Amino acid sequence: MDYNRAFAQAIDRLHAEGRYRVFIDILRNKGMFPNARCFAGHNGPKPITVWCSNDYLAMGQHPKVIAAMEEALHDVGAGSGGTRNIGGTTHYHIDLETELADLHEKQGALLFTSGYVSNEATLSTLAKILPGCIIFSDELNHASMIAGIRNSGCEKRVFRHNDVEHLEALLAAEDPAVPKLIAFESVYSMDGDIAPIHAICDLADKYNALTYLDEVHAVGMYGPRGGGISERDDAARRLTIIEGTLGKAFGVMGGYIAADKQIIDVIRSYAPGFIFTTSLSPVLVSGALASVRHLKSSSAERDGQQAAAAKLKAMMRDAGLPVMDSTTHIVPLMVGDPVKAKRISDILLAEYGVYVQPINFPTVPRGTERLRFTPGPAHDEAMMTELVEALVEIWDRMELKLAA
Amino acid sequence: MDYNRAFAQAIDRLHAEGRYRVFIDILRNKGMFPNARCFAGHNGPKPITVWCSNDYLAMGQHPKVIAAMEEALHDVGAGSGGTRNIGGTTHYHIDLETELADLHEKQGALLFTSGYVSNEATLSTLAKILPGCIIFSDELNHASMIAGIRNSGCEKRVFRHNDVEHLEALLAAEDPAVPKLIAFESVYSMDGDIAPIHAICDLADKYNALTYLDEVHAVGMYGPRGGGISERDDAARRLTIIEGTLGKAFGVMGGYIAADKQIIDVIRSYAPGFIFTTSLSPVLVSGALASVRHLKSSSAERDGQQAAAAKLKAMMRDAGLPVMDSTTHIVPLMVGDPVKAKRISDILLAEYGVYVQPINFPTVPRGTERLRFTPGPAHDEAMMTELVEALVEIWDRMELKLAA
Repeated sequence: MDYNRAFAQAIDRLHAEGRYRVFIDILRNKGMFPNARCFAGHNGPKPITVWCSNDYLAMGQHPKVIAAMEEALHDVGAGSGGTRNIGGTTHYHIDLETELADLHEKQGALLFTSGYVSNEATLSTLAKILPGCIIFSDELNHASMIAGIRNSGCEKRVFRHNDVEHLEALLAAEDPAVPKLIAFESVYSMDGDIAPIHAICDLADKYNALTYLDEVHAVGMYGPRGGGISERDDAARRLTIIEGTLGKAFGVMGGYIAADKQIIDVIRSYAPGFIFTTSLSPVLVSGALASVRHLKSSSAERDGQQAAAAKLKAMMRDAGLPVMDSTTHIVPLMVGDPVKAKRISDILLAEYGVYVQPINFPTVPRGTERLRFTPGPAHDEAMMTELVEALVEIWDRMELKLAA
Repeated sequence: MDYNRAFAQAIDRLHAEGRYRVFIDILRNKGMFPNARCFAGHNGPKPITVWCSNDYLAMGQHPKVIAAMEEALHDVGAGSGGTRNIGGTTHYHIDLETELADLHEKQGALLFTSGYVSNEATLSTLAKILPGCIIFSDELNHASMIAGIRNSGCEKRVFRHNDVEHLEALLAAEDPAVPKLIAFESVYSMDGDIAPIHAICDLADKYNALTYLDEVHAVGMYGPRGGGISERDDAARRLTIIEGTLGKAFGVMGGYIAADKQIIDVIRSYAPGFIFTTSLSPVLVSGALASVRHLKSSSAERDGQQAAAAKLKAMMRDAGLPVMDSTTHIVPLMVGDPVKAKRISDILLAEYGVYVQPINFPTVPRGTERLRFTPGPAHDEAMMTELVEALVEIWDRMELKLAA
C-alpha cells in the first residue's frame, strides 16, 4: 500500500477537473466592509472589494455587535472551557436561546458550534429516535443536511427541487404508520430561489410528517423581525423545526435550531455532535445576541440589501451578462465551466481588486459552475458600476457570449 | 405515528436511568477564575468555585489572549463571513496554521470549527480516500472519533484500551496490502491515563499503517513547548496526523490537525465538515494564536497545573476518597452510580458553592459514573482543603465507603 500515491492521485483528480481550490488570504477593514486587504500573489496587502461574503448585512462590523463581544470578553474571558453539560453553559447561552425561540415563535432553541453541526446533529439524531423513519429530502439540500440524513442510517427519498407534486407522490407511496420527516431549505443559496413552505406544510399535515426547515440564508434578512422566510410567509408555527445560523446575516459564528421544548430536550440529550463538544465561546454568543436583537427591530439593513440586490441584477441584465433567475438577495452569474469560472475570478482579483470566488462542484452540480455575488447594504452604486464594467470587459476578452 | 409519545419516551428513559442532564448556568469572573457566578436554583447569581473546566491552564483569561482578541475585533470585526474557500480565510487563519504546524513538527496544519469536527471530518474523509481501509480504534476513543470512523463506512477493529499486544494481533490478522489506520488518544480524559505512543508507532511501521493521535487533553500541557505527549515523548515526527483543540488548555475554541502538506491538502479538499462551514471567527483565531505562542515559551502554567493535580490527588488519597489511578492532570473520583454521582454534585453546588458535574453514560461506561476534577494553576490550597472536607462530609452523610 503506497499511501502517498493514493493521496497524490486524490489531489491530481481535482487539478484535472479544474476544481482544485486556492484559498484567498484576506483581512477586512472593520467599519469599511466590503473593503478589505488581500495577501495573495503579490508583495504586501492590496485593497480589494469583497463581493462574496455571507456577512450579508455587514453585521460583523456593527458597533452594537462589537461592543457586546468586547463586554463579554472583559466580563467572562475568551472561551467557555467546556461542553454545555460540563461547565460550558453560560448565562449568555441561555439568553440567546430564549431570544432565538422567540424569533421563530417556538418554545425553545438550542445552540450548536455551527450551522453545519446543527443540521448534521439534529437530522441524524431525530431519525434515530424515530425507528423506521423515512426522510424526504429536496435534491438541492445543503451538504450538512445530506450528511445528517446519511449518518442517521435511515431511509431517504429525494424529491425534485421545490417540486410539491413529486414530494406528494413519494409521501403517498409510503405506509401511513411510518414516521416521516420532510427536510428542505427556505432560500437555496446557490440559485437564490425560495421553497413553497405552506404547500409543503399542507403535505406534512395530510401525511402526518414532521418538517425541518433550513433558514440559514434567510434568518436576519426576511420577515419583519428577521425570522426568515417562515416569518415573512407567516408559516413559522406550522414547522416542526427551524434551523438557522449566527455566521451569515447575524455576522458572527454558530448555528441553532428552534422547536418545541420536548424536541429541544431530545436533541440536547441524545445528539453526539451537541453533547461532546466545547460550547460556543461566550464572546460569540454575546455578539450574536446583540445582532439578533438589533435585527428584530431594525429593517434598514434588510431594505438596503434588497435594494442593492435588485440594482445589481438589473445592471447585469442590462449589460447582457447571464445573471440567473434569483428571487432573493443572491446574484448568481452562470459560467458553466470550472476552468473559466476560476479564470474570471482570478482576473477580477488580480486586475480589478474584485474578490468573488468561483463556485464549482461539489458546491454546485458539474456544468453549472458560476460566480455568486452577495451585494449588501454597504455595496454602493459606484462599486456596482466598476464590477459590471469589469465583467463585460472580461466576458469580451474571453470570448464569452453576452445577451443582446 | 404519535411523534410526541416517541419523544416523551426517549426523555423518560433518561430519567429512569438517572442520567437526565441539567445544564448549570454560570458566568465566570474573568481574571478571578476558578471563581464564577451561578444562576441555578435560587434568586440572583451565587458565587461558586469551578472544578470541572477544561480551560485547564486558565488561558481563557490570560491578558495576552484577551488583548489579541480585542485587537482582531477592532481590526477586522466579529465573524469571518464565509467558508474557508469563499471569503473566510483570513491572515489570522494562515498564521495560526503555520504556528500549529511548527508546534507539532509537521509541514502543515488545518483549522476546524471544533475538535469534534476535526476528528469526525478527518477520520471519515481519510478512510474514503483509501478504499478498503481498516481503522484500528482504541476502545476508549472519544465519541467524535467513533463518529468519524462510523461515518467513513469503513471496516473497524476495536483494540482493548492501550493494549499493544491486542492491537498487534488485530493488525497481523489483516492482508498486508490493505490500507490501515490506527486511531488513538494520548491522554484519555475520563481516566487520566496515557497511551504508549512509541510502541504503537513501532507497530504502525511494522504493519505499514498510518497513525492518528488525538491530543486534545494534552496540547498546551505536556512537552517543553506544549506540543502534547507526542512532544514530551519525542514522537511527534513518527505520527501521521496529530489532532488538537483550541478550546481546552489554549482557552478559546476550535480544533485542528497537523500533518504533512499532502494530507492537509487532501482533507482541505475533500472533507465536507471542513468545506461547507463558516470558518472560525478571526477573533477566536487571534486569541488562540496568542495562547499557543505564549505556551510555547512559558512553562509556568504547566508546572502550576501539575503541582495542583499532584496536591489534590494526595489530599484525596489521604482522606480515604476513591480517587482513581490517574498519571496526568485529571483527577477522577469513582462513584459507580449515576444517581449518587448526581446527588453528590447537587449537594456540592447547593451547600458548598463547588461546581463539578457528574460524569455519566454515554461519556463513561455504565457502572463507572464519577466526578472529574480538573485542578489548574489557579486552584489554591485553601480551595482544595475546602473541597476535600466537603467531599468527606458528603461521603459520610450518604454512607459511602472511605478507605482506612
